[in-house]
Amino acid sequence: MSDEPTPFTADDYRARMERAAASAADAGLAGLLVAPGPDLVWLTGYQPTAITERLTLLVLTPGSDPVLVVPALEAPDAAGAPVTLRDWKDGADPYAVASPLLDAQGRYGVSDNAWAMHLLGLQRALPDTGYASLTDALPMLRAVKDRHELQRLAAAGAAADATYEEILKVRFAGRKETEVAGDLADLLLGHGHSQVDFTVVGSGPNGANPHHEAGERTITEGDMVVLDFGGLKHGYGSDTSRTVHVGEPTAEEAKVHEIVRTAQNAGCEAVRPGIACQEVDRVARAVIDDAGYGEYFIHRTGHGIGVTTHEPPYMVEGEERPLVPGMCFSVEPGIYLPGRFGVRIEDIVTVTEDGGRRLNATDRGLAIVE
Amino acid sequence: MSDEPTPFTADDYRARMERAAASAADAGLAGLLVAPGPDLVWLTGYQPTAITERLTLLVLTPGSDPVLVVPALEAPDAAGAPVTLRDWKDGADPYAVASPLLDAQGRYGVSDNAWAMHLLGLQRALPDTGYASLTDALPMLRAVKDRHELQRLAAAGAAADATYEEILKVRFAGRKETEVAGDLADLLLGHGHSQVDFTVVGSGPNGANPHHEAGERTITEGDMVVLDFGGLKHGYGSDTSRTVHVGEPTAEEAKVHEIVRTAQNAGCEAVRPGIACQEVDRVARAVIDDAGYGEYFIHRTGHGIGVTTHEPPYMVEGEERPLVPGMCFSVEPGIYLPGRFGVRIEDIVTVTEDGGRRLNATDRGLAIVE
Repeated sequence: MSDEPTPFTADDYRARMERAAASAADAGLAGLLVAPGPDLVWLTGYQPTAITERLTLLVLTPGSDPVLVVPALEAPDAAGAPVTLRDWKDGADPYAVASPLLDAQGRYGVSDNAWAMHLLGLQRALPDTGYASLTDALPMLRAVKDRHELQRLAAAGAAADATYEEILKVRFAGRKETEVAGDLADLLLGHGHSQVDFTVVGSGPNGANPHHEAGERTITEGDMVVLDFGGLKHGYGSDTSRTVHVGEPTAEEAKVHEIVRTAQNAGCEAVRPGIACQEVDRVARAVIDDAGYGEYFIHRTGHGIGVTTHEPPYMVEGEERPLVPGMCFSVEPGIYLPGRFGVRIEDIVTVTEDGGRRLNATDRGLAIVE
Repeated sequence: MSDEPTPFTADDYRARMERAAASAADAGLAGLLVAPGPDLVWLTGYQPTAITERLTLLVLTPGSDPVLVVPALEAPDAAGAPVTLRDWKDGADPYAVASPLLDAQGRYGVSDNAWAMHLLGLQRALPDTGYASLTDALPMLRAVKDRHELQRLAAAGAAADATYEEILKVRFAGRKETEVAGDLADLLLGHGHSQVDFTVVGSGPNGANPHHEAGERTITEGDMVVLDFGGLKHGYGSDTSRTVHVGEPTAEEAKVHEIVRTAQNAGCEAVRPGIACQEVDRVARAVIDDAGYGEYFIHRTGHGIGVTTHEPPYMVEGEERPLVPGMCFSVEPGIYLPGRFGVRIEDIVTVTEDGGRRLNATDRGLAIVE
């Protein structure tokens, strides 16, 4: 495709690994242990065909070359990663291969989604080691995006916007939520996504469950419909929500939508370097509280996005770390009226030198669909 | 669809949870902690829309009702599971919600794929608790399938067989591996799979990498091509391999294929209740060793299958636990000649009262494709 971005190079990955190892040292850690998943992709470019029970583990130690412990039969797949491979064969004890790479008294950061089985294996092999999750130890490791990552996130956002523009033209009334969800998935793929992570179509009362995906309910005239969709394009995420209405809304529906729109706008406008993440949540929440709907905004205001569609930083009460230029996250307040309907509006926002910039640009008003 | 199986009931799930809790007690455990994934689906029928960083955890304690700790905004999704829900809201400490459900001095079995972050959260909240992975503590928890599970596995196997029969009719020569892999995926979905887990098309030298998936290589006349594909149908797995040849094979190719066929057959024939899992591996391996290709059979002989396509029991040297009627697993020896070609043949086999029964029935000879 013509919009294919320049691939990241081995040098890019080496620079990330060096920075991560230095951050680990700064945090008083002996190193980082990274299992397959987003952290490993981001650090090395390597993604196994499947995540299985076989141990694959990147050992990053400040001052040493990175080593990837890998099952022997997956070693050929990993050969392109800028790391030293240390393979182990079926039937061997993989922790006996990994543990000599660790300081037996060290404290390590471990990727959040590493399997508990593997952590227990390391704890058994090296009982005097200590561990902290990457989210606890280095929550902002991947949070600040560089120029090339921002380009990818912007392209993913533009593809999600194009998807929204086109979904407004499809028929809603009389079709099942799953059918519209299928349209959303097709559109995301058509606009260059390699992976669809979620296609929420929450019509009528289903919209009042913020994690409802899409079901067998037939959408009807008079429904509010929450649309929330995203996935990965060129390895980076999209995630946007708009709420539409089939036919004309009631006065209450229009009012609730307008409250959410005002809250979402206030959250986006609040973004600037130096404020605490929780401030974005507070600003958006205050609008909804003041309008008397505070008890119906039952989730945090946002989450980071990058090589996943869900990662730090979190815009949530208690997250006191500051926004930094290059961070990217969702701003997505909502109001959920049980048994009736829900409204959510969401953009991805990136922190600039002096404020914030949205990576989604479609109209946020209550669109009327057929 | 007409072949839709009878759904599992709340009573089915309750019986599984009771059996699991009893097995935990027998193993000296205070209980089981189960995160989203195959164990949770099997025990409760509940599968969150996505596995995220938010803690969802089933706490199974012998003699107590099962409790599912769940994020508040996912609680509506989990409402159908036959468990007591204990929800927590964004911003709260989920480990403070989970830990009162645990014996502060207890030792727990924890699902293999639970996130390390969550295990660390529990270890921090309750420093005197102990943990073992389910694979270590209760490896055979899901290994013995009941009648209804066997029906589903047989149906998934039949769908994979139909896929193989049809892939023999497509064009191989001149097409990329990824194109044939796409055909395999379409066929699996067409035959009722809801999820495709892998579609290996390893042509020529790519076949010598047992975990090669499918790449940009164009298949040509004279290639051996390893096909290994599977996924989930009605929640249960398929996984079968056949090796085909584009045009007539050389004498050596035919010989190597015949050795693998003999080894695979010997492995299947060895299956019967009471023998150690490793015996299946030994029998198949002996055939390949005796033929002089032992160093080119670089993986274990098989793995279990159920609600996943990859689980205990493992047919591997060192696995001394016995085969039990109802177990289901792959028998898939192979020979991999680096830089040249590979051969693998694989069936799913279930242990019967007096032997084994294959759930794949397609011809295992070297099929010639165009």
